[in-house]
Amino acid sequence: MSCGVCAGCEISGLSLQTGAVTTSPMDIVRTVDELRKDVRRARSAGRNIALVPTMGALHAGHISLIEAAKKTGAFVVVSIYVNPTQFGPSEDFTYYPRAFESDCSACRGAAVDLVFAPTDAEMYPSNDQTCVRPGPLADTLCGPFRPGHFEGVCTVVAKLFNMALPDVAYFGQKDAQQARIIQRMVEDLRFPIRIEVCPTIREADGLALSSRNERLSEVDRKQAVLLSRALCEAKRRLQSGESSTGRIIAAMRGVIAEHAEIKVDYLSIVDPLTLAEVAVPTATVMVAGAVRVGQTRLIDNMIVDIPPARS
Amino acid sequence: MSCGVCAGCEISGLSLQTGAVTTSPMDIVRTVDELRKDVRRARSAGRNIALVPTMGALHAGHISLIEAAKKTGAFVVVSIYVNPTQFGPSEDFTYYPRAFESDCSACRGAAVDLVFAPTDAEMYPSNDQTCVRPGPLADTLCGPFRPGHFEGVCTVVAKLFNMALPDVAYFGQKDAQQARIIQRMVEDLRFPIRIEVCPTIREADGLALSSRNERLSEVDRKQAVLLSRALCEAKRRLQSGESSTGRIIAAMRGVIAEHAEIKVDYLSIVDPLTLAEVAVPTATVMVAGAVRVGQTRLIDNMIVDIPPARS
Repeated sequence: MSCGVCAGCEISGLSLQTGAVTTSPMDIVRTVDELRKDVRRARSAGRNIALVPTMGALHAGHISLIEAAKKTGAFVVVSIYVNPTQFGPSEDFTYYPRAFESDCSACRGAAVDLVFAPTDAEMYPSNDQTCVRPGPLADTLCGPFRPGHFEGVCTVVAKLFNMALPDVAYFGQKDAQQARIIQRMVEDLRFPIRIEVCPTIREADGLALSSRNERLSEVDRKQAVLLSRALCEAKRRLQSGESSTGRIIAAMRGVIAEHAEIKVDYLSIVDPLTLAEVAVPTATVMVAGAVRVGQTRLIDNMIVDIPPARS
Repeated sequence: MSCGVCAGCEISGLSLQTGAVTTSPMDIVRTVDELRKDVRRARSAGRNIALVPTMGALHAGHISLIEAAKKTGAFVVVSIYVNPTQFGPSEDFTYYPRAFESDCSACRGAAVDLVFAPTDAEMYPSNDQTCVRPGPLADTLCGPFRPGHFEGVCTVVAKLFNMALPDVAYFGQKDAQQARIIQRMVEDLRFPIRIEVCPTIREADGLALSSRNERLSEVDRKQAVLLSRALCEAKRRLQSGESSTGRIIAAMRGVIAEHAEIKVDYLSIVDPLTLAEVAVPTATVMVAGAVRVGQTRLIDNMIVDIPPARS
């Protein structure tokens, strides 16, 4: 299903399917000791361990990660933890959606083997002080708008990796900068873990699924879709051979300006590996943006393959 | 053997024994792939894995760590890598002693199972950028004199942990702040690794063994011993019930002032867990100091149990 905006668009719709409760023997644990015991038992039984780190409020994007993990036959651990250290003091930690019961139902429905839902005390004991600090990959895109965010992400993910000791961990392309920084962390610190990045899942009209979408009012929701429309506009122009990133970004701003209430944090065309802005788009680029709709900050991105210039 | 300075001193002498070459089938590898292969094989054979991280120039202090590891029956990996990121721009990275051949002989003599001696490119590929940042434990003692040092230490040790995947790792009490920060890192980031801290090994006159001692001239060597003598003086006073840390530190400075050429970076009485300076010494404290003798910076410390005050 196309996003309804551009031809050849990568957007495909997927409706939310998180409710089916089954009687699978899914364990729910709160401590690292219990987690490690279950993981050790699974490993002894010859299973690989797959971790899907989440902050809960699960949607079809998360379920797609779980399904990708399940397909491999791995013992699938879903962590559910709203990590305070990745929220700035003026951000939405308090209002971030929490839905533990329905998350557990969704996990059962997706045949998850183990839910790890640690307490704050388990994740951050009172004398906790060591952090994992990402490098320049955290200085672009969302970085300047969310000081400390990616350090919080790296630190909690490093903890989760060492707690669950997975062979593979799944992240969504929707949070592209996060995925890239985690990949870099794994390579730099040599975690013996493979990172799988799965495609963004979208609503039928193109809006990227996000737990934060729950917080959009009906009016907000209509505006929110403009971010993906702006990305599609950039994609169309890039694939038509337009090479002025200034003009392309101006066109994206034009799409979003349909609703003056949307505030743009950034709209950028970057190298998908270094996340540095590209002056002249060639080969493959990532178009990314962050906007604020009402009280809600939304991000989205698309990878665009640019056809060779005609001679 | 006492240090010759104070009664009841913990200092014991141990002469350097690192040269005995045997024909044990010790492997020497340079890459993470080879390291992991050997470690995996040992683990499959039911062995625990013990890591002794070193910067080479091995002395009896290192050998005591190896012997502690060997006693447990573990498969003992010694890493030898002079880590550039823990040296400041004006520090002694270039002049740090390197002695790979004799280090390997010493490891063979101590029945080490595997030496891991990575290249710089293996430890820090060109796009490496993620760091592990310690907290307030790095802000005291050596921290202010060596900006970035403990971040370099944490980062390289985290890499080594993820490369070798040991069950236990050995560090020396001589580098007490390093050991404490690594313990904290392991607890905070939840590495599934036990940290063993082994006692400081000293020359007969009390000088703590250090690879940097090699760089002391004959004159420097005579001055260097004053650091351990100053620590012994503090210990004696603390155990005699003296409670003014100001007076005790002044007495330590008095011992060191025997040679005006010694420059004191710090002399401190701290809590052994938090490394914060103690106002009134009670129970157990750590007396620690750092001095510069010629071009060489030396550190040392002693844990002191203080007898209850007489009523």
